[in-house]
Amino acid sequence: MTSLTDSERVALANTALYEAMEQGDHGAMSRLWLDDPDLEVSCVHPGWPVLRGRGEVLRSYALIMANTDYIQFFLTDVEVSVMSDTAMVTCTENILSGAPAEEEGQLGPLVGQLVVATNVFRRTEDGWKVWAHHGSPVLAERDDDAAAGDAEGPDDDPDQLLP
Amino acid sequence: MTSLTDSERVALANTALYEAMEQGDHGAMSRLWLDDPDLEVSCVHPGWPVLRGRGEVLRSYALIMANTDYIQFFLTDVEVSVMSDTAMVTCTENILSGAPAEEEGQLGPLVGQLVVATNVFRRTEDGWKVWAHHGSPVLAERDDDAAAGDAEGPDDDPDQLLP
Repeated sequence: MTSLTDSERVALANTALYEAMEQGDHGAMSRLWLDDPDLEVSCVHPGWPVLRGRGEVLRSYALIMANTDYIQFFLTDVEVSVMSDTAMVTCTENILSGAPAEEEGQLGPLVGQLVVATNVFRRTEDGWKVWAHHGSPVLAERDDDAAAGDAEGPDDDPDQLLP
Repeated sequence: MTSLTDSERVALANTALYEAMEQGDHGAMSRLWLDDPDLEVSCVHPGWPVLRGRGEVLRSYALIMANTDYIQFFLTDVEVSVMSDTAMVTCTENILSGAPAEEEGQLGPLVGQLVVATNVFRRTEDGWKVWAHHGSPVLAERDDDAAAGDAEGPDDDPDQLLP
């Protein structure tokens, strides 16, 4: 068995984060987040304010899991950078999800959502752990020429042009 | 003159990032971002997809500055964590901005905006530099009991409950 590179290990930890969500596995989610008394974790769900500390972050995931009957992530455009004991992952989350329906036993309508994420990991003795997650909605598609490295924003709408 | 702690230096670098925006100082913005051939920077403006690399990121700031006649940031809830050569800042950006008006020489209507940011810095010989910036709109206010550490999201709307 060949050993994995740091980047490969980080990519696997990143994938595991989304698999824990898909499976509603709160225990796995808890194990994936950094547990270090000297370093507070932070988390921003799309449209949410900042959550800080394991307690607050893990409670938010419990709430989201309780309100989500079905969720699937198709990750695209995943980029991993590793610098000594810190790693940065940026990726696009193509999300398909359904909340519980009004009628018991039924799944609510499925909703597609495009989110971009910045995920920061720290190397620990127990593998790479999430230090910070920040997800945000992509409010408009970029132009087709975006792939050519054009940095213009969504439709050049000044309302979308704030840092 | 007393020497500053790492956290204080990172907080100053974080403030400088917003001052460069307020002043439309693209040169200062360029100097604040990490310039390391081994480490690609990344940037997410609110509602935008991920931008990667100094060229794409700095072009986006030039575009934003060109479309913004007035912008002011009131930073609140600033938290800094430092772990060896990496630092994480989370903060709330209370933004007041105005785009150019239709009539020449006029300022467009001022718009308030609430954004949360995760900013990651690397220590360099030339001070702390931005490795990643991720800003996202806060789509709804939290309840008043949020200050008590309640992790519930905005109005418990399931549409806002995705990671």
